[in-house]
Amino acid sequence: MEKAAVPAKKLVGNSYIEQGCNSLRSADSSLRHLVEQRRLPQRGWSDLAIRRCLDEVALMDSNNYEGNVGAGEREGRVYSELVKQRNHYLAHGMGRSGDIAANQPKAAGSALMCRITEGLVLDVLKSTGCNNTKSCVVLPVATGMALLTSLLYLRQCNPQASIVIWPRIDQGTCVKAPQTAGCELLVVEPVLEGDSLVTDVGRVEELIHHHGDKVLCVLTTTSCFAPRTPDKLVHIAELCKSNNVAHLVNNAYGIQCSRCMGLINTASLNGRVDLYVQSLDKNFLVPVGGSVVAGFSKEIISAVSRTYPGRGSSSPVLDLFITLLSMGREGFFQLISQRKEVYKKLKVKLQDLASVYKERVLETPNNQISLGFTLTPSNYKEDIKLPEIGSKLFTRNVTGARVVTCSGDKTVGKVTLKKWGSHSNEYPTPYITFAAAMGMTENDVDVVVEKFGQILAKVSVI
Amino acid sequence: MEKAAVPAKKLVGNSYIEQGCNSLRSADSSLRHLVEQRRLPQRGWSDLAIRRCLDEVALMDSNNYEGNVGAGEREGRVYSELVKQRNHYLAHGMGRSGDIAANQPKAAGSALMCRITEGLVLDVLKSTGCNNTKSCVVLPVATGMALLTSLLYLRQCNPQASIVIWPRIDQGTCVKAPQTAGCELLVVEPVLEGDSLVTDVGRVEELIHHHGDKVLCVLTTTSCFAPRTPDKLVHIAELCKSNNVAHLVNNAYGIQCSRCMGLINTASLNGRVDLYVQSLDKNFLVPVGGSVVAGFSKEIISAVSRTYPGRGSSSPVLDLFITLLSMGREGFFQLISQRKEVYKKLKVKLQDLASVYKERVLETPNNQISLGFTLTPSNYKEDIKLPEIGSKLFTRNVTGARVVTCSGDKTVGKVTLKKWGSHSNEYPTPYITFAAAMGMTENDVDVVVEKFGQILAKVSVI
Amino acid sequence: MEKAAVPAKKLVGNSYIEQGCNSLRSADSSLRHLVEQRRLPQRGWSDLAIRRCLDEVALMDSNNYEGNVGAGEREGRVYSELVKQRNHYLAHGMGRSGDIAANQPKAAGSALMCRITEGLVLDVLKSTGCNNTKSCVVLPVATGMALLTSLLYLRQCNPQASIVIWPRIDQGTCVKAPQTAGCELLVVEPVLEGDSLVTDVGRVEELIHHHGDKVLCVLTTTSCFAPRTPDKLVHIAELCKSNNVAHLVNNAYGIQCSRCMGLINTASLNGRVDLYVQSLDKNFLVPVGGSVVAGFSKEIISAVSRTYPGRGSSSPVLDLFITLLSMGREGFFQLISQRKEVYKKLKVKLQDLASVYKERVLETPNNQISLGFTLTPSNYKEDIKLPEIGSKLFTRNVTGARVVTCSGDKTVGKVTLKKWGSHSNEYPTPYITFAAAMGMTENDVDVVVEKFGQILAKVSVI
Amino acid sequence: MEKAAVPAKKLVGNSYIEQGCNSLRSADSSLRHLVEQRRLPQRGWSDLAIRRCLDEVALMDSNNYEGNVGAGEREGRVYSELVKQRNHYLAHGMGRSGDIAANQPKAAGSALMCRITEGLVLDVLKSTGCNNTKSCVVLPVATGMALLTSLLYLRQCNPQASIVIWPRIDQGTCVKAPQTAGCELLVVEPVLEGDSLVTDVGRVEELIHHHGDKVLCVLTTTSCFAPRTPDKLVHIAELCKSNNVAHLVNNAYGIQCSRCMGLINTASLNGRVDLYVQSLDKNFLVPVGGSVVAGFSKEIISAVSRTYPGRGSSSPVLDLFITLLSMGREGFFQLISQRKEVYKKLKVKLQDLASVYKERVLETPNNQISLGFTLTPSNYKEDIKLPEIGSKLFTRNVTGARVVTCSGDKTVGKVTLKKWGSHSNEYPTPYITFAAAMGMTENDVDVVVEKFGQILAKVSVI
Repeated sequence: MEKAAVPAKKLVGNSYIEQGCNSLRSADSSLRHLVEQRRLPQRGWSDLAIRRCLDEVALMDSNNYEGNVGAGEREGRVYSELVKQRNHYLAHGMGRSGDIAANQPKAAGSALMCRITEGLVLDVLKSTGCNNTKSCVVLPVATGMALLTSLLYLRQCNPQASIVIWPRIDQGTCVKAPQTAGCELLVVEPVLEGDSLVTDVGRVEELIHHHGDKVLCVLTTTSCFAPRTPDKLVHIAELCKSNNVAHLVNNAYGIQCSRCMGLINTASLNGRVDLYVQSLDKNFLVPVGGSVVAGFSKEIISAVSRTYPGRGSSSPVLDLFITLLSMGREGFFQLISQRKEVYKKLKVKLQDLASVYKERVLETPNNQISLGFTLTPSNYKEDIKLPEIGSKLFTRNVTGARVVTCSGDKTVGKVTLKKWGSHSNEYPTPYITFAAAMGMTENDVDVVVEKFGQILAKVSVI
Repeated sequence: MEKAAVPAKKLVGNSYIEQGCNSLRSADSSLRHLVEQRRLPQRGWSDLAIRRCLDEVALMDSNNYEGNVGAGEREGRVYSELVKQRNHYLAHGMGRSGDIAANQPKAAGSALMCRITEGLVLDVLKSTGCNNTKSCVVLPVATGMALLTSLLYLRQCNPQASIVIWPRIDQGTCVKAPQTAGCELLVVEPVLEGDSLVTDVGRVEELIHHHGDKVLCVLTTTSCFAPRTPDKLVHIAELCKSNNVAHLVNNAYGIQCSRCMGLINTASLNGRVDLYVQSLDKNFLVPVGGSVVAGFSKEIISAVSRTYPGRGSSSPVLDLFITLLSMGREGFFQLISQRKEVYKKLKVKLQDLASVYKERVLETPNNQISLGFTLTPSNYKEDIKLPEIGSKLFTRNVTGARVVTCSGDKTVGKVTLKKWGSHSNEYPTPYITFAAAMGMTENDVDVVVEKFGQILAKVSVI
Repeated sequence: MEKAAVPAKKLVGNSYIEQGCNSLRSADSSLRHLVEQRRLPQRGWSDLAIRRCLDEVALMDSNNYEGNVGAGEREGRVYSELVKQRNHYLAHGMGRSGDIAANQPKAAGSALMCRITEGLVLDVLKSTGCNNTKSCVVLPVATGMALLTSLLYLRQCNPQASIVIWPRIDQGTCVKAPQTAGCELLVVEPVLEGDSLVTDVGRVEELIHHHGDKVLCVLTTTSCFAPRTPDKLVHIAELCKSNNVAHLVNNAYGIQCSRCMGLINTASLNGRVDLYVQSLDKNFLVPVGGSVVAGFSKEIISAVSRTYPGRGSSSPVLDLFITLLSMGREGFFQLISQRKEVYKKLKVKLQDLASVYKERVLETPNNQISLGFTLTPSNYKEDIKLPEIGSKLFTRNVTGARVVTCSGDKTVGKVTLKKWGSHSNEYPTPYITFAAAMGMTENDVDVVVEKFGQILAKVSVI
Repeated sequence: MEKAAVPAKKLVGNSYIEQGCNSLRSADSSLRHLVEQRRLPQRGWSDLAIRRCLDEVALMDSNNYEGNVGAGEREGRVYSELVKQRNHYLAHGMGRSGDIAANQPKAAGSALMCRITEGLVLDVLKSTGCNNTKSCVVLPVATGMALLTSLLYLRQCNPQASIVIWPRIDQGTCVKAPQTAGCELLVVEPVLEGDSLVTDVGRVEELIHHHGDKVLCVLTTTSCFAPRTPDKLVHIAELCKSNNVAHLVNNAYGIQCSRCMGLINTASLNGRVDLYVQSLDKNFLVPVGGSVVAGFSKEIISAVSRTYPGRGSSSPVLDLFITLLSMGREGFFQLISQRKEVYKKLKVKLQDLASVYKERVLETPNNQISLGFTLTPSNYKEDIKLPEIGSKLFTRNVTGARVVTCSGDKTVGKVTLKKWGSHSNEYPTPYITFAAAMGMTENDVDVVVEKFGQILAKVSVI
């Protein structure tokens, strides 16, 4: 509208329009700054400013050119108005057939959005503790598929190797992804230190030495459920470096936790980390469906992008782009701080509750997200099975707490893991976990602990 | 985004971004042209282009300035995100306390949208047949309230006069508005010419002469249900001119009909027409709630605007602005042409049906929107009451057909009208009306006539 | 979806679907409760729950019936998808030709929404301090037009009377509305008590006695800019009762202030109040464009509704319906409490600032919304004109503060008011006003006072 | 609202509410029918009906339960209102860690939507010509990634085999996907029959015999650019069956073409087809990002789903669900018919143009989507390079036409293909291709041919 300021002034008056144009210029200036810097804006943008930005992005895609006519097989045609709108008139997805990070001639706006978003995410990764990061790519698939892509990239680099050494974490995707990549998974059981389950570095070293060139990589994990703790990344990274073995880190929801990010950073400086992978939904409060693969070399990230065959949905990028602009640096780090406070509060309130019911909160200081609360079987009425405590929470609208009874096996593909859910063949006690994750509020903690307490009051014999 | 082209090119490449910027420049150019010309664009805009325009408009209102803080009692604060969005972040409404057409310092964007919309509507009024129109104002009230405003304006000009001479039309609002304005309504019964009910010009003249200075205005009607026909505007306008009496025209849904518009134009050239009033919903296919008051002098329209006390909702203007941009000249006149075709088809198909059932379509050639189909009582089964034919259509999802039995009185305020619904004390036959209105399709005609035929087959004794 | 639970369970499993259906049943139950009680829900609804409710409302309007075909001239046809969506597929507006509060056969859903909204508003009016209220109607016009409608209703009741006695308030609409209604406005100057401008009850009484049957009503005001205070409603109401004169109260933004509501309640109990009128935007944080006319007799409100000729936009009702559901009782009264706190904070911070610059905050304890801050001319640099202080605030993005210099006249229609803006012919000092209105936050207060302080530092000679 | 009918009738009247409830019941009935049948509804649903359905789906996901509190690490929290809305409040994506087609306890609604959508797609696949299809899964990745997933599935079934025999098609993704899967690609050059490039079945057979157990699969293609024609699927399928070799079909945009679908059907009946893969965007007019993997055994499709590690975005399913409901069977098959007509028209108009410029349209009757138009070099001005013709179309807003000069090599991974773009080492003439794809209109054809003609007029020497 700024270019129409002259005739607009005739209609509404000079000073009013001039003030309005100041607002437009301010928005334009923020936009230019965003493209130039590709860093989180200090303050979040208004929804209106974000919408205008998206409108401009969309107008830069060929399917929105005035008078455009398609003569190919893929022309960004969209049938439903509802679908058009919910995709903000973007239709061409991201990437090209050879490279998910390539720019499309037909979709300059979408490509620009992808490039900016990569920059914003890189800014976040550096700011949250992994300052050594050099590049990243946002993939339109969730963490499991991103791990698979990373593994397939590593296999392309080293076709003779197929063994993945894996400190056990009982999360289905992690067992599945390597096997889908055609790899053999060697499981490294954790060792118990106090209440914590920690990486058996010695066993990892043994396996590396024993299998030699057949080892494709070590696959470690940062964010995890207590009492498992983040793997000893620095030690593993040093081992990988000295043995010339690749190192892939599953940092699924670790961006929200400075300890996880710091571990990766130090590991990358002191040893070898090829790639680290994280999901968008848990770290950035967007719907499930996207992930970030990051690393310490632009070339490697670029090669990973080229490994991904074909285009992908731009939906995850779009959700992330909107969200990061909406949060701004202030909003994002406010959430990070809030999470820390919530963790502290959750721990204290669970400890108070535990003292009443002769249980205790597992001491796992290296896990700064998840907390375990023991469920000593003899403390409960005879007719109560421990998993019912989880069900009762669910029917009281508390989701996500998990009761681990340390019993039962699970087979995923060719791998069978005993006492599935406990990350270990021999954890000494059943427990229930609670996570203090991004977006949880202090009020949420109150509700969770209150309802948990009500249930304990019913089922405990203490 | 165009101002960010330089850094964008570094990210996505010169040629892609250049093409994208061409699209942005094209949209900017259309926008400038719109503000300069305030005429319907030849081709309709895409929804994306419209949204971008609205975003720019909204950014020009102070409630959307970055960092704006309010210290008054009316600051455009909106609580609900849903409400913000559905109002496209506009909150200040239209007008100022003294004048519904005044520009607001706090809302330059909204004001600009109002001024542009007035221009677009003026363009439509001129293009559809009333080329002599000089000015118009879009009011955020429906036709009845717009008639009331017009009457109050006339009363302010001529405080001693309070009589409104009114060729009868059986539509509640028309009876109500003058009485709410504190006027006395003198009803002029129509005369029967063939099947048509036409204006009794002689009686109007008599009343003017008889009541002299007490006559505030003649209130005529163009668009109406058959067999009533548009009033003889040209004769009345001449009478008004020669007797120095104001003339207000209710052109409720007449913009869609070139005959109505032509009548007003000729009347304004040969005689006196002060104001003509029409609704937005029926002529422009927007939700109910707005109207246009138009006239042949900028000063009069300006005075009407000043008569309206206070601000108003900008919702009707927003709906109209979006719709006119979306239609463009081509879209709007395509609808006008379609309506003419639909009228012809409806007439022919009803005539065919009438010939089967020994009824006939009333010959009312001066009414080019509505058609009457006789319902001769003796043609129907004894236990059938004629209004049931309407109800049966309604339950078959055909809305808007009206059975007129020419019986029953209605009192609105102090005025009692006999045989309410038939516009006359003595129409010779019951009938049912169908309208070929803006937006009706040929397929709609098929469905309507088919279902009507099914009903006749059941209830007729022919 | 609940009716599809059986086949859904086959696809997704019994327990998951059962949990999902519980959520649907909960939403249905809230909906039923809303329709039955027509009272604010205790807790606000989620946007999703509101949208679902609106979808159901819309499906009940005939334009959304599957297979509906229109054969009338007003069929709820909407051209633009953007317009359809922003109106949530509602097109028929509110009311019928005779009565803005009547139910439409073609629009059962819209009608239901109107009836519920009236109930919600009545609940608010009673809960905020005017418990004696019996009925109200939401009009699709802003306050000025609602005052006009109320005056036209009073004129219909008493056609011989045309004088409106009006304790002066310098707000354009209030001067305009009575004149548009064809009334003569008798201005009652306020008297100065301390810093406050208060109603000259004696003069009102004089005028009533002097003009007798010619007096249509007294038009009083509650919410207003300091140093004017709410009129002495109780005294006036008693006068009106004993003299059999109507009493109309302009309570524009008074719902947010318990003192204003309490005054009206007491006045209605002890004397006569026919109607009180308020705007939607300022009290409920919706866009400008709607108002509420409330009173102490269902019959009177019903008669006012019938005074309004024709239909109207359902947009203001829709905005209000969404907003009240979104707020819930908790949200609404949290805003009410916040406003009180903000008023206190604003007063204290302004007093602190005043003490630095040898000014003072006007003591107007009966005005609990607006505050005046003196601007003693000799305290400012010679080249500074006092209104520039307001302009400087505006360019620093503080809107709504008003500098009143107590000079200059204004003519609205036939009425000329001296020293326009100061509500008085002789207020002793210039000042600037700030309002602590609904939606203002404590942070807003900080920003406003900080920026005002910066300006004073530049322009003051103290 | 239906459950609130009793109190609603008190407010608005029995008959009006009853009619409204009929509309709600009709929508409920359609919904139940949809869940029961999982087949395309005969007529498309209105956007309003679709929105209501989505609202119900969303309310069934735990993140939208009233009062839900999360205590896990993935709780469907979404930060931005814009993101919430564009995802219709769905946040949990699709699938679970082990299986992209599994139902999530926390997201019953999302899971239900996925199951319904699978049913709708299966219905489409059967109705468009591949009636033998037994099952399908919608993946939240584009075709390339779906081919990769299919290949990884095949590798899991047959870990010793790694050779993919591939009748050449010059589309980057097809070359990339097998290599990312760690396979060796054996390229089978096509043979020239008339103008058409057809499958060299003999060479495929030779390679199967030569490589024996090392052969993982044959990867054939249906939809392709002229003059390449769909592969001889039936012959290949018979070969695969008799040699016990897997057969994967890339049917990227073949759903829109009954010939492609019929080929797959016959091949599956007469020989072996393990899986066929297609993209969502081109066949269903949704944004890029989803695909369908279909097959002739529920177990195989189920195994493919389990190959996909982890969850995925529900965005592609959501877009498809909306679109298929919006189209209905009538809408979808109307588009299919339109495409056939458009193909015929495009061919005739291009032939007319060719005859003017001494060129000809390549005769490739087995390719019913794409057409080639020769560009004989000697027919053009000396300073014109043939690719410029494509660029000129692009700058005239005709996108998607491709000039193939039959020169230049391309290396993707370890595979180098000569004369990239022409699908062959030795096609005799340069040409330009045009596609008559889903969604193209007859008017589009006019514009394309007109603009192409304008360019020829400038560059041709004929």
